[in-house]
Amino acid sequence: MTLLNCDMGESYGIWRLGDDRRIMPAIHIANVACGFHASDFNHMRATVRLAKANGVEVGAHPSLPDRQGFGRREMRISREELANCLIYQIGALKGFLDAEGMRLYHIKPHGSLYGMAARDPEIAHAICDAADVFKVALLGMINTEHERVYAARGHRFIAEYYVDLDYADDGSLIITQEHDPVDPQEAVNRGRRAIREGLTRSIGGKDIAVRADTICVHSDTPGAHLIAEALHRALLAEGLVEPRRAGALATSSTRST
Amino acid sequence: MTLLNCDMGESYGIWRLGDDRRIMPAIHIANVACGFHASDFNHMRATVRLAKANGVEVGAHPSLPDRQGFGRREMRISREELANCLIYQIGALKGFLDAEGMRLYHIKPHGSLYGMAARDPEIAHAICDAADVFKVALLGMINTEHERVYAARGHRFIAEYYVDLDYADDGSLIITQEHDPVDPQEAVNRGRRAIREGLTRSIGGKDIAVRADTICVHSDTPGAHLIAEALHRALLAEGLVEPRRAGALATSSTRST
Amino acid sequence: MTLLNCDMGESYGIWRLGDDRRIMPAIHIANVACGFHASDFNHMRATVRLAKANGVEVGAHPSLPDRQGFGRREMRISREELANCLIYQIGALKGFLDAEGMRLYHIKPHGSLYGMAARDPEIAHAICDAADVFKVALLGMINTEHERVYAARGHRFIAEYYVDLDYADDGSLIITQEHDPVDPQEAVNRGRRAIREGLTRSIGGKDIAVRADTICVHSDTPGAHLIAEALHRALLAEGLVEPRRAGALATSSTRST
Amino acid sequence: MTLLNCDMGESYGIWRLGDDRRIMPAIHIANVACGFHASDFNHMRATVRLAKANGVEVGAHPSLPDRQGFGRREMRISREELANCLIYQIGALKGFLDAEGMRLYHIKPHGSLYGMAARDPEIAHAICDAADVFKVALLGMINTEHERVYAARGHRFIAEYYVDLDYADDGSLIITQEHDPVDPQEAVNRGRRAIREGLTRSIGGKDIAVRADTICVHSDTPGAHLIAEALHRALLAEGLVEPRRAGALATSSTRST
Repeated sequence: MTLLNCDMGESYGIWRLGDDRRIMPAIHIANVACGFHASDFNHMRATVRLAKANGVEVGAHPSLPDRQGFGRREMRISREELANCLIYQIGALKGFLDAEGMRLYHIKPHGSLYGMAARDPEIAHAICDAADVFKVALLGMINTEHERVYAARGHRFIAEYYVDLDYADDGSLIITQEHDPVDPQEAVNRGRRAIREGLTRSIGGKDIAVRADTICVHSDTPGAHLIAEALHRALLAEGLVEPRRAGALATSSTRST
Repeated sequence: MTLLNCDMGESYGIWRLGDDRRIMPAIHIANVACGFHASDFNHMRATVRLAKANGVEVGAHPSLPDRQGFGRREMRISREELANCLIYQIGALKGFLDAEGMRLYHIKPHGSLYGMAARDPEIAHAICDAADVFKVALLGMINTEHERVYAARGHRFIAEYYVDLDYADDGSLIITQEHDPVDPQEAVNRGRRAIREGLTRSIGGKDIAVRADTICVHSDTPGAHLIAEALHRALLAEGLVEPRRAGALATSSTRST
Repeated sequence: MTLLNCDMGESYGIWRLGDDRRIMPAIHIANVACGFHASDFNHMRATVRLAKANGVEVGAHPSLPDRQGFGRREMRISREELANCLIYQIGALKGFLDAEGMRLYHIKPHGSLYGMAARDPEIAHAICDAADVFKVALLGMINTEHERVYAARGHRFIAEYYVDLDYADDGSLIITQEHDPVDPQEAVNRGRRAIREGLTRSIGGKDIAVRADTICVHSDTPGAHLIAEALHRALLAEGLVEPRRAGALATSSTRST
Repeated sequence: MTLLNCDMGESYGIWRLGDDRRIMPAIHIANVACGFHASDFNHMRATVRLAKANGVEVGAHPSLPDRQGFGRREMRISREELANCLIYQIGALKGFLDAEGMRLYHIKPHGSLYGMAARDPEIAHAICDAADVFKVALLGMINTEHERVYAARGHRFIAEYYVDLDYADDGSLIITQEHDPVDPQEAVNRGRRAIREGLTRSIGGKDIAVRADTICVHSDTPGAHLIAEALHRALLAEGLVEPRRAGALATSSTRST
């Protein structure tokens, strides 16, 4: 059964981004920004509380150190330095989860870091080095270097499909600085095909192999909550996604992985 | 028995501060910077490893968000925001402790935040709000608002005496942007008197009541390692400080508090 | 004749704030953020270009170093350090004005710094120290320490009235982290009274003396462009504000001060 | 006649880097950090004043936005964004030069940006876009993309030789995170050969063509002031470098370019 995930908590200081209050009730797992591409200690606390109130599991969404570029600017960074960068961010998020009596569910690298990990084993190894500390699942795409490295290192891999980003002909994701609007019905169609057939159409018109253990919607995609709601409604009716729990989460009552 | 503590890991990026390699072997507990007034993810990892190699317990040394002012610039911040600010930093440090199989031993607010907590119960409460998450002891000075609030909230309080800072006649600490040199022998004399008599001389020549469960040396005080070594040698010989353990720390073998 | 001013260019990275494109055509002078409380090098360039295209004069809107708190967090800072902090920001903005062939029209301290300057002569002097370098007018409120200091130092003073903030009974401005909505017609009534009678009503119901050489609308006040347009339309019809120039500004054609 | 240049003002907050007080008297032109890889508003003011007191011309030493990595971390950035990033920094420095009545003498990109500009015409064009605003000379290395682009855009080019960094066999500079010590006499020999013969030895043992309109010493190279003094003494005696002026600089008395 597929889980819906969304990048949450991407406001910063006075600035708001994403309609977290309306998206949260439609997803299963939230990738929560850790202060390096977005968010700060106040928004992290609020986002963790919002997830808890909606029965949503929380994963870390750490980034390259690049707030002004929203983590969408590639940079050269060593494996050791990147592992440290990630441990810092995930540890910080875990502080807020501890404060709210919640567990860390997964780790999903943000933005350019995600794309770099898909191509470069050194980057994927750095992510595993950090994940070794926290012992949780990693989100990623199939047929990539990060899938290969995560599996070789023994990490649980949750395969992810994107309904609001384009795929290149080689199966790689096209990460842009800002996201274009997506029609909710088209998102549902794309999601259904990804789950049922394991395929999606590239920008060049090719069928690309994908796997959708989880489907991602970005909170800064215009109308993100409508996309998430449409996916949830349609795919739940077809028995393709897990039912969401109504109530609030607590460490003692969390779903076993 | 008194413990020696020192602010450690206050380098940042290319910039070095403090002679941590020479100070670490002379202290019992290290207050490790968490990236807001000093340090970054690389220096935090290295500092935690250095503490481990020297059998030194690690506490968090979180700060107001003020790297350029080294956390020595007072600012207005609400209790809720400050608690979040501290949870973020302590959680991040805990990530590195988890990575090295170490425990968090204590929390000591840094710089202006320490002074603000000594005067202002709201600030002291914010520190308790963060400490509630991590359930460790708090360092502070006696006859202050933070002692009163920490005790009222049920937190373990470790009373601290400073050998390298001046005390005002009202018993408050004089926190300067940069620290003046201190003669090691004078530091020993001040430390001994604080432990044996519970007194220190203020800048106005008054005797001030202090308690020295732990004695602090700042790593950015010139010649800090000589001060720490002199304190350790002299006060150990007099049976006033705890012997240091030779070996490395691990979670399983840590001293019970 | 009164000028309308607005804080412009307060987006940061991916985050948007304020409806600059709709406000700019309704104002005479723009207070442009310099990267310390808001904006960055990209938004500063874009904002300067937008002002130029709308024939709007540009002033610097420098802040305390506090992006996460949007410059609305008071902090302790020395006169010398603050002057340096301001010169850096104003110089950076001037780089973009030089790039677009525009002049710097004025300086208006942002947020908490504005309020601190109104109360504390040392802060007001630091602002003058920076203004000495750039030799432009300073915006402020009458019956304050900053008015007194600016005048004593020989700086041109442009008295400012706020239609979207409350005044305390002592005439000081109440600066909040986020701004409440304001009815455009009420803003017009407040603005008219400030210009014609030199008075405004405090939150305690007292009449406070004000002077409105310029009227300020904040871009992050909800519906700011409607307020600016209403003020412009109504007060222009009554001959109370200057007509705006239709075309674009250039250094050679700017209005003499 | 060759000028000696050095990267100056690379301290940050409480952290010190480089022995600027001892290096400044031995150089002709200072590349002053602008706050993005190093320095802050206080250190920039102090560095500009120190240069003035020593009769040293000041150039801007802007960087990629990367303080924690000291600008030595390559990142992907568009031409337009980079130009904005540079204008911001150079404008900020110019504020301090205006405050001290000094002129901007040149621009020299820092760290990874320098190396990127040497290889990538888009980066070199962005630097020219910024230099167009300030109309000053650009430092760089011969036989590079930046030399080619700067010349094609009509900018004055000052060819630079490094006595404290290694050259690869292809003539490119090897930029490391931290600099190794260099023997002053070897630096003199390398400098003399670069000036007289236009050659230097690569790490692979090849003779590489260089030109030394100016010779660079990095302030964070250990013993940098001894290297600068040795170069100044030896090469002045041989008539290879310009005599330094004893007195302080002012705009009215600066050397014409």
